[in-house]
Amino acid sequence: MIKVAIVGSTGYTGAELVRLLSHHPEVEIVALTSQSYVDQAYEEVYPSLTGQVGLSCQAQDIEALMNEADVVFLALPHGLSVPWAQEAYRQGKKVIDLGADFRFREVQTYENWYKTKHEAPDLLSQAVYGLPELNRHKIRESVLVANPGCYPTASILGLAPLLQAKVINPKKIIIDAKSGVSGAGRSAKLGSLYGEVNENVKAYGVATHRHTPEIEQEIAALLGMEAEKVKLSFTPHLMPMTRGILSTIYGELLENLQISAVELRQIYKDFYDKEPFIHITEEDQWPQTKWCYGSNHVFIGLTVDPRTHRVIVTTAIDNLVKGAAGQAIQNMNILFDLPETKALERPGIWP
Amino acid sequence: MIKVAIVGSTGYTGAELVRLLSHHPEVEIVALTSQSYVDQAYEEVYPSLTGQVGLSCQAQDIEALMNEADVVFLALPHGLSVPWAQEAYRQGKKVIDLGADFRFREVQTYENWYKTKHEAPDLLSQAVYGLPELNRHKIRESVLVANPGCYPTASILGLAPLLQAKVINPKKIIIDAKSGVSGAGRSAKLGSLYGEVNENVKAYGVATHRHTPEIEQEIAALLGMEAEKVKLSFTPHLMPMTRGILSTIYGELLENLQISAVELRQIYKDFYDKEPFIHITEEDQWPQTKWCYGSNHVFIGLTVDPRTHRVIVTTAIDNLVKGAAGQAIQNMNILFDLPETKALERPGIWP
Amino acid sequence: MIKVAIVGSTGYTGAELVRLLSHHPEVEIVALTSQSYVDQAYEEVYPSLTGQVGLSCQAQDIEALMNEADVVFLALPHGLSVPWAQEAYRQGKKVIDLGADFRFREVQTYENWYKTKHEAPDLLSQAVYGLPELNRHKIRESVLVANPGCYPTASILGLAPLLQAKVINPKKIIIDAKSGVSGAGRSAKLGSLYGEVNENVKAYGVATHRHTPEIEQEIAALLGMEAEKVKLSFTPHLMPMTRGILSTIYGELLENLQISAVELRQIYKDFYDKEPFIHITEEDQWPQTKWCYGSNHVFIGLTVDPRTHRVIVTTAIDNLVKGAAGQAIQNMNILFDLPETKALERPGIWP
Amino acid sequence: MIKVAIVGSTGYTGAELVRLLSHHPEVEIVALTSQSYVDQAYEEVYPSLTGQVGLSCQAQDIEALMNEADVVFLALPHGLSVPWAQEAYRQGKKVIDLGADFRFREVQTYENWYKTKHEAPDLLSQAVYGLPELNRHKIRESVLVANPGCYPTASILGLAPLLQAKVINPKKIIIDAKSGVSGAGRSAKLGSLYGEVNENVKAYGVATHRHTPEIEQEIAALLGMEAEKVKLSFTPHLMPMTRGILSTIYGELLENLQISAVELRQIYKDFYDKEPFIHITEEDQWPQTKWCYGSNHVFIGLTVDPRTHRVIVTTAIDNLVKGAAGQAIQNMNILFDLPETKALERPGIWP
Repeated sequence: MIKVAIVGSTGYTGAELVRLLSHHPEVEIVALTSQSYVDQAYEEVYPSLTGQVGLSCQAQDIEALMNEADVVFLALPHGLSVPWAQEAYRQGKKVIDLGADFRFREVQTYENWYKTKHEAPDLLSQAVYGLPELNRHKIRESVLVANPGCYPTASILGLAPLLQAKVINPKKIIIDAKSGVSGAGRSAKLGSLYGEVNENVKAYGVATHRHTPEIEQEIAALLGMEAEKVKLSFTPHLMPMTRGILSTIYGELLENLQISAVELRQIYKDFYDKEPFIHITEEDQWPQTKWCYGSNHVFIGLTVDPRTHRVIVTTAIDNLVKGAAGQAIQNMNILFDLPETKALERPGIWP
Repeated sequence: MIKVAIVGSTGYTGAELVRLLSHHPEVEIVALTSQSYVDQAYEEVYPSLTGQVGLSCQAQDIEALMNEADVVFLALPHGLSVPWAQEAYRQGKKVIDLGADFRFREVQTYENWYKTKHEAPDLLSQAVYGLPELNRHKIRESVLVANPGCYPTASILGLAPLLQAKVINPKKIIIDAKSGVSGAGRSAKLGSLYGEVNENVKAYGVATHRHTPEIEQEIAALLGMEAEKVKLSFTPHLMPMTRGILSTIYGELLENLQISAVELRQIYKDFYDKEPFIHITEEDQWPQTKWCYGSNHVFIGLTVDPRTHRVIVTTAIDNLVKGAAGQAIQNMNILFDLPETKALERPGIWP
Repeated sequence: MIKVAIVGSTGYTGAELVRLLSHHPEVEIVALTSQSYVDQAYEEVYPSLTGQVGLSCQAQDIEALMNEADVVFLALPHGLSVPWAQEAYRQGKKVIDLGADFRFREVQTYENWYKTKHEAPDLLSQAVYGLPELNRHKIRESVLVANPGCYPTASILGLAPLLQAKVINPKKIIIDAKSGVSGAGRSAKLGSLYGEVNENVKAYGVATHRHTPEIEQEIAALLGMEAEKVKLSFTPHLMPMTRGILSTIYGELLENLQISAVELRQIYKDFYDKEPFIHITEEDQWPQTKWCYGSNHVFIGLTVDPRTHRVIVTTAIDNLVKGAAGQAIQNMNILFDLPETKALERPGIWP
Repeated sequence: MIKVAIVGSTGYTGAELVRLLSHHPEVEIVALTSQSYVDQAYEEVYPSLTGQVGLSCQAQDIEALMNEADVVFLALPHGLSVPWAQEAYRQGKKVIDLGADFRFREVQTYENWYKTKHEAPDLLSQAVYGLPELNRHKIRESVLVANPGCYPTASILGLAPLLQAKVINPKKIIIDAKSGVSGAGRSAKLGSLYGEVNENVKAYGVATHRHTPEIEQEIAALLGMEAEKVKLSFTPHLMPMTRGILSTIYGELLENLQISAVELRQIYKDFYDKEPFIHITEEDQWPQTKWCYGSNHVFIGLTVDPRTHRVIVTTAIDNLVKGAAGQAIQNMNILFDLPETKALERPGIWP
C-alpha cells in the first residue's frame, strides 16, 4: 500500500483527492492536514465523505508527515510548497504539488506573474510538469511533480496535436476559457456567493491571468522554442456552475495550408490514440463540460473553418479532477508504476 | 458474471444503471433496449459514458432478451412491465422493476391511483417491495422485485424507526418533499425546461401524487395495520436542481409521551446500526441533498420539538441512485448473494 | 417629493430599496448609509444600478440624517434600530424598520428568541406590524412601522383567510417554507457559496427559527387570542436559487367540518377581493416563486384534501420585494397617503 | 395611444414585449396572437403577468390585425414575416420584425445561411437594421424595422467604436459569445431541459451560426466596405443560465499602432457619450450579464494587451431585452417620436 498524506486537505481540491483516493485499492491515506479544522474529524468538514476516511485533520508537521508518507500531495496556496519539497528531497520521498510553485522552468516567469520571490529556484529544474499525456516518461523518473493548472490542462491538451502537426501559427493563438466557480476554492468571498454567481457570466483577469505563461511555456516546449517566443491571449470567464472548464481555442492555419476538418480530426485521433482519458468527438458534436462531471475524462472537439482559415477547438474537463486532483492521482499512478487509470475509471455523472 | 439486460435504458434511470453497472465487477451488461434510439451506439446517446459500454440500443424482444440475461432491470413507464415479468417467470429469470406496476399489494390501490387496469394482478402477491433496509430477507427469496419510488424511499426510511418505536401517531403524518427535476425523466416537457425551472420552486400533485399510497402501504405494513387505516399528507415540490430529494417529515408525538432528541436519535442509530448506506446526523446538523450527489448514501436528521410536541425528520437521498438505479443494484446484489455495497461504495460528489 | 434615507443601504435589501425607490415618482433619495463602503459611489457597489442614483455611501449620523429625511428605511441587523426610532420620535419623522426590533408586542418574546436585551421596550407599543393587507388602517396612523419578516409575510398571508373563516384548528398548523439564498444577505459566508448551495437543498433552524414567534403572534392577533396560545411548527429550507419564498401550509380542518376546495377558494377570493398584489390561483394551479421574481405580487394556491381532512395552501413571494423592500415601500405609500401600488406596479420577470 | 399588436406573443420574446409594453404610458396592446394558445387568456399562459394585460390569445388574421394596430411586433420563426410586412405596406402601418427575414441587404446572404428562399427580396431595401445607437436617423424614417439578433446586438455595439476609430484589423476579428438558454425559445427541446443545461457549458453552431453574416454585414457597413470583405469567427456557447449574453471580442491592433487602454476607453466613452443605455466600465471592471438582468442596459468593458498587441472587449446585455424585446420597443419609441427610454428606464435586478 502506498502511504499518502494530503497537505491542505480541506479545500475543494483536497476533498477531491480524499474522495478519489479513499477508493484507490493501492493507497492508504495516512494524514490529512488543515489550517482551519485541526483535530476535527474529516467527515465533519465534508459530510459527503462520511464513512470514507476515518481520520481527523492535523496541523502541518513537515518532517513527521514526510516520514510517515511515501508520497505527499500539496494542495496549498502558491508560495507555501517549497519547504515540503525540500524535506521530501532530504528524505527521498515523492511530492505532487498541485500549486504553481514548481510549474515554471524560468524563475523569472514565476516571479513576474505571481509577484512573489521564489524561495528555491534550484528545485525548478528538478520538477517535472505533470501532464501525463505529454510527459509521462519524465514523470516516471521524477520525484517532484508540478501538477498543471486547471486552465492549462484543458488548453494544452487541446493545442498539442495542432502544434505538433504544425498546422497553425503559434503566435496567433487565442484561448477563451470558461470555468465553474469551484476553481476559486472554498473560501468565503463575495464574488463566489450564490447570489452573485447564479444567472451571471463575466470575464476576469483579462490579459493578466497567471495561467497564461504556463500555457505559453508548455506550447513553446512542444515546439522546441524559447518560451518568450510564444505569446497568446488567454481570457478566463466565470460560469454559473460549480465544476467544469471549457477551453475554446482559436488558431490561424498557416498561410496556404489546406486541411479539412476530417484530416485534422484524424491528427487528433492519432495523437491521442492510446490515451484512456482523451476522447475526440465526431463532426458537429461539441464537448460539454458535464460529460466529465466528477471524472478524469477529457473531451476534445474541433473544426476547420475554411471561410476564416481558422481552426476552432474546444476542450472539456472537470476542473477539480483532470484539472487538479484526478490528474495528480494519475501522476501518482505513474510514479508508483500502477496503471494510470487506477481509481480514475469512473465516468462523469449525467444528468 | 451476472448477465444483465436493461429495458428502457435511455432514460435517466437507465443511464444511471449503465453508469453504475459498467463498474460492477460481477456484472456483464448484455443488452440495452430503447424505443427512440434503436441501433444507435449507447455512448452516442450518453457521451458521458464514452468507453464504458460498447453496446448499441436494441428494440425490445422480450423472449430473446430474457433468454440472454440472468436478470432484467425494467425502467419503463407504468403499465408496461407485466409482459416482462410474465416471461421472466416462464423462463425462471429474475426481474427488478423500477416502475410502479408491482409495488402494490392491493390491485385496487394501483388502479385507483394510476387510473390503469392492471393486466396481471395475480403477480402482485409474488412481488417483493425492494427496500433492502426493511425487506432484505424477503428480497433474497424473490424473483420479482418492485423497486420503490424515489419519494417513498426517502420517506419510508425517515419514518420507519419512528413507527417501530411507536412514538408518533401514524394517522397524523405529514411529508413535505422536495425533488430535483431529473425525477421527471428525460422527456422534453415545457415544465422541465431550464428557463421554467431555474430560480423557481413550486408544489405539484398536491394531495394526489401517486407515491402517497405507496408510502401509506409500507407504513401500515410496518405497523401490521391494514393499509387503508393510514392516511398521510404527501406534498412534492419541484426544486431548481437536477438530482436529490429531501423529505421533511412531521410527526405528532403520542399524547403524554416524553422523549428527547437525544433519545430519539439513539433509536434511529440502533435501528440503522449495521446499514452501510444510512447515516444519522448529529444534533443541529441537517442533511443536505448534495451530500448524496451521485451516491447510494442516505442521510437522516431529526429533532424533537417539545414546544409543539412534534418530531421533525429530514431524509436526503439522490433520487436517481438510492431513489432508483442504486437501490435496484442493491437489490440485485441481494438476489445474487453479493455484498450489498458492491458497485455502490462511492461517496457523493462535493462540491 | 418625499425625502428618503436608507440606512444600511448596501445589503441586498438596501439595494432593492434603491432599485425600486429610484423609480418612485414621489420620492427623492437623499441619503444612503453604509458601514463598509463609506464615500464610495453607490453605483460602484451595485453596477446594476448605474445611472439610477447619483449618491455616494455615507456614514451613519443619526441626527443629521433624520433632519434631512422625511422617512427613514432601516435595513440593519437586529438590535441596531432603537436609536434611529428614538431620534425619529424626537424629530417627528417616520421610520420603516425592516429588521426585527419592533415586530413583537411582548418584549419577552423578542428577548427569548433573539437572545438580546431590548433597549427600548416602551417603543414596542407604538410600533405597527406593517402587513398592509391586514393592518393598513393602523399603519396609516403610525410613525414607526415594523416591516414583517420574509417568511412571516408569505405565511401569514396564506393563513389569514383560513383563520378568519375559522375552518382550521389554530393549534395544529405546520408551515414548511422554502427560501432562496438572498435571504441570508450579502455577507461572505461558507454556507452561501455557489459551490455549497447549487444542486443542494437542506432544512435549517428547525424548531428554532426566529420567524416562528412572529407568525404565531400575528395569527393569535387575528384570532383575538393570546400569543402563547398558538404554537405552530415552522421549518425553513434553503433552496438553490437567489430569490423567492414558497410557504407550504398544512392546516387541520375542524372536526366534522365539511368544506370543498371550491368553497375555500371563494373564501380566499373574498378575503383578498380588493387587494392589488394578492392573486388566488385556480384549481390545480400551484404558485411558482418565479411568477413573483422582482415584483411585489403574491400568489396563493390551495386545496382541501378530504382523504386526510386537511387544507394545504402554498404562498409564493419574492423575499426581497413583498418579503422586504417592496412591502416597506407599500407601507411608505400608506404613510404618505399615496396609492399603495406606486412604484410597485411591475410584474415578475419570466423567464 | 399607440395601438400595438404582438404576433407570436406566447414565446419568451413575446412575453417580454407584453411585460414591458403593459407599462408603456403611450401604448395600448390591442391584440396578442398565438398558434398554440388561441382563445386562452394570456395571463394563463404567463401567470407572472397576471393583472397586466386583459387579452386572450387570438389566431393570426393578418388583414384585420393590421387594420386594428398602428404598429405590429413580429416575434415569429424566420420565413414567416413576409406577408405581415406586405400587408403593413399596403395599409401604411409600421412593422418591427424581431426575426431575421429583413435583416440582410443581400438576399443571397439570407438564403445561403438560412437555407430558405426569400419570398419578398424587394422589401429588403426598404427595411432598416434597427440598432438605434448606430441607425436611429434611418429608423425614424422607416416603416419596416429589422430588429437585430441578440448576439449581433452585443457584438456590434462592442465593435463599433473600434472600427470607427480604425484601430484594429477588420479581417482578424474573433467573437466568442456566451448566451443563456432563453435564446433558444420556449419550445420543449431535449437540449433545453434543466437536467441537460445546469452545470454544463458547450459551444454550438461553431463556424456556422446564422448571426455571423449579420455581424459581418453591419461591420462592413460601418467601414463602408462590401460585406463579403469582412470575415470573422463567431462562436456561440450555451450557458447554464436563463438570460444574458456576454460577447468577448478579440481584435488585432493595426501593426505599429500604439494605443493605451486609457485612450481606447476614451474612444468608447466619446462614441457612446449621449447614449442612455450604454455604459463603459472602468479599468479592471469587467461587465457581468446579471447587471442587465431584465433591463435594456448594456455594459462594455475593454483593455489593450500590449504583450499580444490585441484589444479585448466584453459586452453584456440581457438577450431578451436589449437583445430582443427592449430594443424593439426602443425602435418603436423612435418610430413614434417618443423618448427612446420610455418604458425601458428600469435597471437590472440584482441579486
